[in-house]
Amino acid sequence: MANDKKLVESITSMDEDFAQWYTDVVKKAELVDYSGVRGCTIFRPAGYAIWENIQKELDARFKATGVENVYMPMFIPESLLNKEKDHVEGFAPEVAWVTHGGGEQLQERLCVRPTSETLFCDFYSHIIESYRDLPKLYNQWCSVVRWEKTTRPFLRTLEFLWQEGHTAHATAEEAEERTIQMLNLYADFCEEVLAIPMVRGRKTDKEKFAGAEATYTIEALMHDGKALQSGTSHNFGDGFAKAFNIQYTDKENKLQYVHQTSWGMTTRLIGALIMVHGDNSGLVLPPRIAPTQVVIVPIMQKKEGVLEKAAELREKLGAFRVKVDDSDKSPGWKFSEHEMRGIPVRVEIGPKDIEANQAVLVRRDTREKTVVSLDEIDTKIGEILEAMQKEMLERARNHRDAHTYEAHSTEEFADVVANKPGFVKAMWCGERACEDEIKEKTGATSRCMPFAQEHIADTCVCCGKQAKSLVYWGKAY
Amino acid sequence: MANDKKLVESITSMDEDFAQWYTDVVKKAELVDYSGVRGCTIFRPAGYAIWENIQKELDARFKATGVENVYMPMFIPESLLNKEKDHVEGFAPEVAWVTHGGGEQLQERLCVRPTSETLFCDFYSHIIESYRDLPKLYNQWCSVVRWEKTTRPFLRTLEFLWQEGHTAHATAEEAEERTIQMLNLYADFCEEVLAIPMVRGRKTDKEKFAGAEATYTIEALMHDGKALQSGTSHNFGDGFAKAFNIQYTDKENKLQYVHQTSWGMTTRLIGALIMVHGDNSGLVLPPRIAPTQVVIVPIMQKKEGVLEKAAELREKLGAFRVKVDDSDKSPGWKFSEHEMRGIPVRVEIGPKDIEANQAVLVRRDTREKTVVSLDEIDTKIGEILEAMQKEMLERARNHRDAHTYEAHSTEEFADVVANKPGFVKAMWCGERACEDEIKEKTGATSRCMPFAQEHIADTCVCCGKQAKSLVYWGKAY
Repeated sequence: MANDKKLVESITSMDEDFAQWYTDVVKKAELVDYSGVRGCTIFRPAGYAIWENIQKELDARFKATGVENVYMPMFIPESLLNKEKDHVEGFAPEVAWVTHGGGEQLQERLCVRPTSETLFCDFYSHIIESYRDLPKLYNQWCSVVRWEKTTRPFLRTLEFLWQEGHTAHATAEEAEERTIQMLNLYADFCEEVLAIPMVRGRKTDKEKFAGAEATYTIEALMHDGKALQSGTSHNFGDGFAKAFNIQYTDKENKLQYVHQTSWGMTTRLIGALIMVHGDNSGLVLPPRIAPTQVVIVPIMQKKEGVLEKAAELREKLGAFRVKVDDSDKSPGWKFSEHEMRGIPVRVEIGPKDIEANQAVLVRRDTREKTVVSLDEIDTKIGEILEAMQKEMLERARNHRDAHTYEAHSTEEFADVVANKPGFVKAMWCGERACEDEIKEKTGATSRCMPFAQEHIADTCVCCGKQAKSLVYWGKAY
Repeated sequence: MANDKKLVESITSMDEDFAQWYTDVVKKAELVDYSGVRGCTIFRPAGYAIWENIQKELDARFKATGVENVYMPMFIPESLLNKEKDHVEGFAPEVAWVTHGGGEQLQERLCVRPTSETLFCDFYSHIIESYRDLPKLYNQWCSVVRWEKTTRPFLRTLEFLWQEGHTAHATAEEAEERTIQMLNLYADFCEEVLAIPMVRGRKTDKEKFAGAEATYTIEALMHDGKALQSGTSHNFGDGFAKAFNIQYTDKENKLQYVHQTSWGMTTRLIGALIMVHGDNSGLVLPPRIAPTQVVIVPIMQKKEGVLEKAAELREKLGAFRVKVDDSDKSPGWKFSEHEMRGIPVRVEIGPKDIEANQAVLVRRDTREKTVVSLDEIDTKIGEILEAMQKEMLERARNHRDAHTYEAHSTEEFADVVANKPGFVKAMWCGERACEDEIKEKTGATSRCMPFAQEHIADTCVCCGKQAKSLVYWGKAY
């Protein structure tokens, strides 16, 4: 049991030091490891398997809306990156440059893609000719590189994994519709699969994507009260189309510019999972995303028949993602280990249980123990997983709602940000100056103008002029 | 019908100019497009979907043998690449170097991974401590970059997609067993899914991987008689372990070096599919890998009830990957188009067919037409797909066997290589000098020493000294 103690002791309490707790969980649950390359992490099997499940689920949802996958080169020639003014200004400072290849200096340097709008636009300008070619609904799964100064696993790394969808449409209406459709797809996925409630809204001009007409976002609240931008969807209008000359002939045989969108989600979702659901014993994974949903821990496994029964049980539970831990560690060590890894349900089965035709189920989030008959264990586990999925979302929503505050004055705003970590709802006049002032004074940024607008005051919380919209503010990762 | 003609005319005949035929198919079947980056291609939906199916099938087979997926950084610091002497000599000349990031020159330049042995070794040196940590069976799906001078879609590109498996074992025997296991897994996959027969064997020292003790390979024969190395599996012994100090404590508490393997398959498999199965009408895809297995082409689709029936049929064929082509092109145009794309079975259904409760099935490889009752169309299509899969493999095997020759003298060897494109089986003494001489004189390289050894002569085909093994030789992509 010495091992157990060591394992549990080695995690910092989340209330004591949330940042350290996060780092501990990431390491102890073996999600990632640091690599010899500054700011780049290694996705270990437990971490990558979560990403694989995210991919599988999102990819199916994309395809159900007509999206097709492609793969674009990882390099962007400098001249191509420079084609859209706002875009290059936003990204050029944080790219990595390849200057030599095959032993020679390149005539034109290539950046490692920080995002692929320019490549997709160049491609679209070649393959789109007629209205018959529209819409184009392409997506790619890949990694991108942004030269960040400070990094944290999943949340901000030099290289990260993501998907980037890029679409081209005949009309502005269609592009806007697709932008919103994908944002809602993201939010539904997060709520239904990751059990993370989202605030859906639009970014202010200050916070929008470099080159976009409008950026929509989903924002989640972490356990420590900080916000995490979890996915964005951009409407480019015809700005990129004009820069890259992407035109089509319409039904009246007239040349028109296409209207474009892009939308992306990244491995930072795994960071969100950790920070929304985790506790002082480690990770807690929602059943629908958990690579292993059920772990069977045999008790007194050297006794005759125990391992056989465990294997039999695994077969019986074939509808779930199940593992048997028959390693030579103690049961206590295994309990801690699988709690650390966030496996939703633990099944304990030993000689006495077998004799009584039963097993003990332990639910990861509530620690609730249930003794069940082996005859109905599959049904029971199905029920527990379903309840856990549902209740994890509810708990996260309650936590978020309990940490969402209103501010009606500068003083109240500053007080909330300083003393009550969470979202701050406050009215805003629409001016960049007020956003800047709020950030400078409090450290909070505008997270979004939610689709679900409320009118909680007539005037801007900062300047007192007439308010245009309600904004969610907060400190963010 | 003008469109049909144009479409068919625009493909070069494979007997006239195989290289041009290949390029035409790749373009017309919309598998890839050229990008603005030299030597890098864009995988279009039809091409990427084939890769997705390859991934799905291979990944399941990997996991069934205990392999877990991870993701390593795309950058390798120069000092890390330099750690294993043979390895760096093999790869350094063809890597791309990142020298600047975030607006500043880097203190140490980073290469974009050409392969990730060095990263995995560095990682393993940190996470492997005891025999309990072994084996490690990791794989990653990613892209790699090698600065090739001349490139061709799928076959040789600066950036390509692949998987690379890297394993660490307690003993040399286990490592060798895994090396062979993965080679056989690759070959079985190619034969069972891609319908491409493989020669399984070992590379000569000259042709082995930089840093490996032994490289095993599977070699396929293309329609034009040239060979294509289709997958390799390497046994590293403890060479990398010594260079990277990867040690574990064994059961007797002694420090031991691990034994390692790596194995990879790439998007060049798609090139193999094209060149083994394609014909003068375009691509021919084996049913098991085809993204669309059945295309339904409605005839006189504006007549009442035709599109409804086509949609109904699609539902009935839900066990297959089915599409309905209800675009406003002519049926003739659609026939050519879907033949070009290699879709295994075409279903034609028009008003007369509906009246007779039947449809016309056309098999892509043989063009065989069958009229079937709609009541049994699903069973019939299942049978056709199965027969097609089987017969495509048989045809490819017959073609390969018919183009595999024996040579017993230098003259015979030169004559075969010059006049009979295909594999040449000939005995070899084991000396590098003879390999070099054969290559210089004939252009043929040693493809492999097949596991299925034969003794067709006592002496080396080149120098006349005593022969050590039978070798498959050939010109290769």
